[in-house]
Amino acid sequence: MTHKIAILGASGYTGAELIRLIAGHPNMEITALSGERKAGMAMGDVFPHLRHMDLPNLCRIDEIDFSTVDLCFCALPHKTSQEVIRDLPKGLKIVDLSADFRLRDPEEYAKWYGNTHVALEQQHEAVYGLTEFYREDIRNARLVAGTGCNAATGQFALRPLIAAGVIDLDDIVLDLKCAVSGAGRSLKENLLHAELSEGYNAYAIGGTHRHLGEFDQEFSALAGRPVQVQFTPHLIPANRGILVTVYVRGAAKAIHETFLAAYANEPFVQVLPFGEAPSTHHVRGSNFVHVGVAADRLEGRAVVIAALDNLTKGSSGQALQNANLMLGEDEVTGLMMAPLFP
Amino acid sequence: MTHKIAILGASGYTGAELIRLIAGHPNMEITALSGERKAGMAMGDVFPHLRHMDLPNLCRIDEIDFSTVDLCFCALPHKTSQEVIRDLPKGLKIVDLSADFRLRDPEEYAKWYGNTHVALEQQHEAVYGLTEFYREDIRNARLVAGTGCNAATGQFALRPLIAAGVIDLDDIVLDLKCAVSGAGRSLKENLLHAELSEGYNAYAIGGTHRHLGEFDQEFSALAGRPVQVQFTPHLIPANRGILVTVYVRGAAKAIHETFLAAYANEPFVQVLPFGEAPSTHHVRGSNFVHVGVAADRLEGRAVVIAALDNLTKGSSGQALQNANLMLGEDEVTGLMMAPLFP
Amino acid sequence: MTHKIAILGASGYTGAELIRLIAGHPNMEITALSGERKAGMAMGDVFPHLRHMDLPNLCRIDEIDFSTVDLCFCALPHKTSQEVIRDLPKGLKIVDLSADFRLRDPEEYAKWYGNTHVALEQQHEAVYGLTEFYREDIRNARLVAGTGCNAATGQFALRPLIAAGVIDLDDIVLDLKCAVSGAGRSLKENLLHAELSEGYNAYAIGGTHRHLGEFDQEFSALAGRPVQVQFTPHLIPANRGILVTVYVRGAAKAIHETFLAAYANEPFVQVLPFGEAPSTHHVRGSNFVHVGVAADRLEGRAVVIAALDNLTKGSSGQALQNANLMLGEDEVTGLMMAPLFP
Amino acid sequence: MTHKIAILGASGYTGAELIRLIAGHPNMEITALSGERKAGMAMGDVFPHLRHMDLPNLCRIDEIDFSTVDLCFCALPHKTSQEVIRDLPKGLKIVDLSADFRLRDPEEYAKWYGNTHVALEQQHEAVYGLTEFYREDIRNARLVAGTGCNAATGQFALRPLIAAGVIDLDDIVLDLKCAVSGAGRSLKENLLHAELSEGYNAYAIGGTHRHLGEFDQEFSALAGRPVQVQFTPHLIPANRGILVTVYVRGAAKAIHETFLAAYANEPFVQVLPFGEAPSTHHVRGSNFVHVGVAADRLEGRAVVIAALDNLTKGSSGQALQNANLMLGEDEVTGLMMAPLFP
Repeated sequence: MTHKIAILGASGYTGAELIRLIAGHPNMEITALSGERKAGMAMGDVFPHLRHMDLPNLCRIDEIDFSTVDLCFCALPHKTSQEVIRDLPKGLKIVDLSADFRLRDPEEYAKWYGNTHVALEQQHEAVYGLTEFYREDIRNARLVAGTGCNAATGQFALRPLIAAGVIDLDDIVLDLKCAVSGAGRSLKENLLHAELSEGYNAYAIGGTHRHLGEFDQEFSALAGRPVQVQFTPHLIPANRGILVTVYVRGAAKAIHETFLAAYANEPFVQVLPFGEAPSTHHVRGSNFVHVGVAADRLEGRAVVIAALDNLTKGSSGQALQNANLMLGEDEVTGLMMAPLFP
Repeated sequence: MTHKIAILGASGYTGAELIRLIAGHPNMEITALSGERKAGMAMGDVFPHLRHMDLPNLCRIDEIDFSTVDLCFCALPHKTSQEVIRDLPKGLKIVDLSADFRLRDPEEYAKWYGNTHVALEQQHEAVYGLTEFYREDIRNARLVAGTGCNAATGQFALRPLIAAGVIDLDDIVLDLKCAVSGAGRSLKENLLHAELSEGYNAYAIGGTHRHLGEFDQEFSALAGRPVQVQFTPHLIPANRGILVTVYVRGAAKAIHETFLAAYANEPFVQVLPFGEAPSTHHVRGSNFVHVGVAADRLEGRAVVIAALDNLTKGSSGQALQNANLMLGEDEVTGLMMAPLFP
Repeated sequence: MTHKIAILGASGYTGAELIRLIAGHPNMEITALSGERKAGMAMGDVFPHLRHMDLPNLCRIDEIDFSTVDLCFCALPHKTSQEVIRDLPKGLKIVDLSADFRLRDPEEYAKWYGNTHVALEQQHEAVYGLTEFYREDIRNARLVAGTGCNAATGQFALRPLIAAGVIDLDDIVLDLKCAVSGAGRSLKENLLHAELSEGYNAYAIGGTHRHLGEFDQEFSALAGRPVQVQFTPHLIPANRGILVTVYVRGAAKAIHETFLAAYANEPFVQVLPFGEAPSTHHVRGSNFVHVGVAADRLEGRAVVIAALDNLTKGSSGQALQNANLMLGEDEVTGLMMAPLFP
Repeated sequence: MTHKIAILGASGYTGAELIRLIAGHPNMEITALSGERKAGMAMGDVFPHLRHMDLPNLCRIDEIDFSTVDLCFCALPHKTSQEVIRDLPKGLKIVDLSADFRLRDPEEYAKWYGNTHVALEQQHEAVYGLTEFYREDIRNARLVAGTGCNAATGQFALRPLIAAGVIDLDDIVLDLKCAVSGAGRSLKENLLHAELSEGYNAYAIGGTHRHLGEFDQEFSALAGRPVQVQFTPHLIPANRGILVTVYVRGAAKAIHETFLAAYANEPFVQVLPFGEAPSTHHVRGSNFVHVGVAADRLEGRAVVIAALDNLTKGSSGQALQNANLMLGEDEVTGLMMAPLFP
């Protein structure tokens, strides 16, 4: 059986990545692609790397007949996403890639995103889309909220440890390095090749990055008490990849064993041998996560490192993984491609 | 039916690329991987991006039982390749990725590569592996010689034009730009990131690049008279991709129509609309070739541009395409993945 | 004696490069910097790499008192530049970096740039700024028109050969590779790091690049007859550098000797030993040009390659070199810094 | 007066950087360049970007007449450096760029570097070369030990804070990002462009990086008690630059004021406005250090970030700054060039 798929916001990077992945999925067929500003254009003109594919032209959302759609990926900007999803058919399965349905508390949403949420019903209904930890909820969900790419990476490095109680919850530092596609296709001077390549910097310093809302929500829920981490993202001159280096207090060996147990049956999470460091080189273009642990020379401290591809596992790959569950497919279908190296 | 596959020289980039591609092939199983210097190592240690795969460890060639192998990819350095292939079982299907069996004339081989060929019988038997132009021969071949990656790119830009007689055979200039993975995993100062990134240069200037042997052989055979092109390769700070800009004398529109006709049924060759320029960005990690044509402002001159991924269509993808034919599979199986962009 | 310098359009890359160079000039002092849209901003906020310098804030052009300015660099966009320069004091020494005064024939200007020239008097007065070939005119000029960066590179590779009559004037192909800073600080999708890095492509194919106007003008004047070259630029994933590979008909050794003679006393032009290929790596951040020559395997053909830094020798360095001449300084003052490698 | 300069180990990156910098120094002349394996070669062949300079050929160290040398830079590998320096004339002024004389305690040296020190007399005599903090000692030193590039960056971010007692000494985390030229010109697979570009990773995880020896020594001496920091370096796909993100406990505003006071008169250290983040983009090719501070959302925690160019301020620029002091020159001579951007 072939599932009919619509993608809203198909002219951005996560939209293009969804198309790339679905191209390799045996049981999905793309029947509608929206892009308001580029409506009418052929996808091969918007993304020439897709010119070999037989795809519908971009259209406006109001031109789509959702009655024939089995599942809709929504890759729109936050705020727009909630306005659109609020008005979509109530029975339509949706995987949203924006930030709009990640935070369960509307006040937290307003605090981090600066606008009042206008689709509270859907927000209430949405399931948080970190597949490995919400698998059963996602299987039965109508609306799944894809996680932030940074938030996903940090959670792969910390959730099993918080759940197992093997680290100090009051002293967690996440130093994250993100490639530039995480910033999307926005036209900003600092994203130009001439200004970005050959250098790097921290941004959103001091705990102001929006993905902290997700960390606070998820880690606190997991711990059953408030947990707040220190988090600094950095922009790195590469196109794909997130690497997070997490400084924790705890026994490194116990941490490693906790990961081995927690991820033993996960098809996409690779726990490296103790003391080995993951690299974004080795997950590029794939849905894999690599997690590594080392003991620090300072007694009682450990370093946890996680790496994934922000556009794949951090966003569109995760979305497809969730869609598979929602549609009754095997979770890994279309997602087992090996990373591209070099 | 699952074909059992061996890869000799699996610790280099073309070997790794073969493994990446075969990972997505439904009817192939890798049963042996050789790497003389790294024999005994796990592939996940040699190439950590493959650590999720269940692969045999690297072994020495003499440890492989070829009686259980259906097809052997040989990704060894030239000169070594002929010595090894000479001694492999005579009935074993082989796709060689080295330069050793590309040139039919042993003297031409000696001239370009500087050593005497030691496997003349196999050289005589080998079929030139540019699939789109040798498809039927390859289907029936036992030993296929993969083309040079630069040689492949140039031929996609010129073969139909030479065959159709729409360009002047005595005034052809190929200015080629190649990404660094084309140089392999060799440890040279000029291939270090610090020395290669952020700059570029021509090399093998003056018509000294070995792939000219292939151009001479193929273009002359096609034209039925000697054809010699002018060819300058350049090393570009990128990891994958070849772009060739070909300056020809002929009617641009006729050239474009020639391409449209020649490639009409080719699954991997995309002829761009007249006047559009291909980009290596749009073929990265894929088996596609993009070909574009423009008329120059100077009467009677045209520019032809072709782009492909040197590791995929220029090498390992081509090899898998040929293996598919040799094994009775659909030629495109395992090769229709979309390019990775960004 | 310290010359007082104004820079109009100081918020772009060529403006910033002028400031970098003037910072190392012992006899120049920057007294005014304009930037219409960013007027009022400190330069350290516009270009944080200049934050250590004591510079005037950006202002509007109409706020500058030109009576105290000895020389004005004009780094404005073309079309704007002619409108501004037309209205500047008639005695003010000006080095313009735009395209507005490069072409002597107003019709050629209109043809290549699509607008009618509005400062014909100044256009008539302007001296073409390729220092090595217009040195004496520049010394006495009031208004010097900086060359196109691609046009400069091509001329270093061809002018001595055309002047000496050692190549066929009817068969010249320039294949040029340009780094991205040549496109300026403009916000376009294809200039984003995510879209530009790791790939490359030709643009303005078929002889449509505007710098062809300069080639036509200069080569024809030099030859005393119309000369038209074939020219294809390519965009390369690097920040600085232009490399041009020129395919000519002529005796390679005579070509090399012609260069050796022509550039024997030039402080910034390095002619490489016969057969060696220049690289943009080796001129980065400097005012040097490297020129190399090789004989092709095809009788009577040669390859000439020239490399320079588009922002330095191709633009702001050339401008400072010209300003030195106009102000009676030694031509090389402030320009002898070694390239940055790696 | 012109100082006669020798550079030992001139075929590596720090050697080349020294030559670049000295080329802009008005009172230094290079009279000898050594490179054992490349002895006899012209520098323009080893480093073509220096081909415009009139430099002595590389020679063996034993060919140098040190009686005519005023100051010798030693850019040799550690271990080799101590063997060479031990046998140089006892009165020769030396700036060493290796690790050999950085650690005052021979046992600490043996612990971090794995070999017994063989030049204890010189080790005892050596002054630690972090100019801003050892200025007067350096002015009178005969032998100055250049700091590790990572060690320098971390110290710019922490020394004033430790000295002023404004941070908790027992909870300091340094997450450092280093560009690839810090690894030198060594031929390793992971330093190849194809393997390094487009990805990044931590290395020496768990507190095993050798520069920790310097941190321990310097911070403990400054604090008057043992101080041990947690330190993880990362390899970033760029050529120049180090960025360190330091997580400390203390009042962010007090930290910022401490920096403003400490660096008020430092010509090369720029303290950014409170809350601004430095970038390696803005120090490339220069001798400047940018330091920024932000308060974290978590009470009592702050983030300090420092950026510099590892080859300039982190190594050869620092070395020249020290040499200026040792020779009675103004400390900034030859070092005030603006960064290269883009």
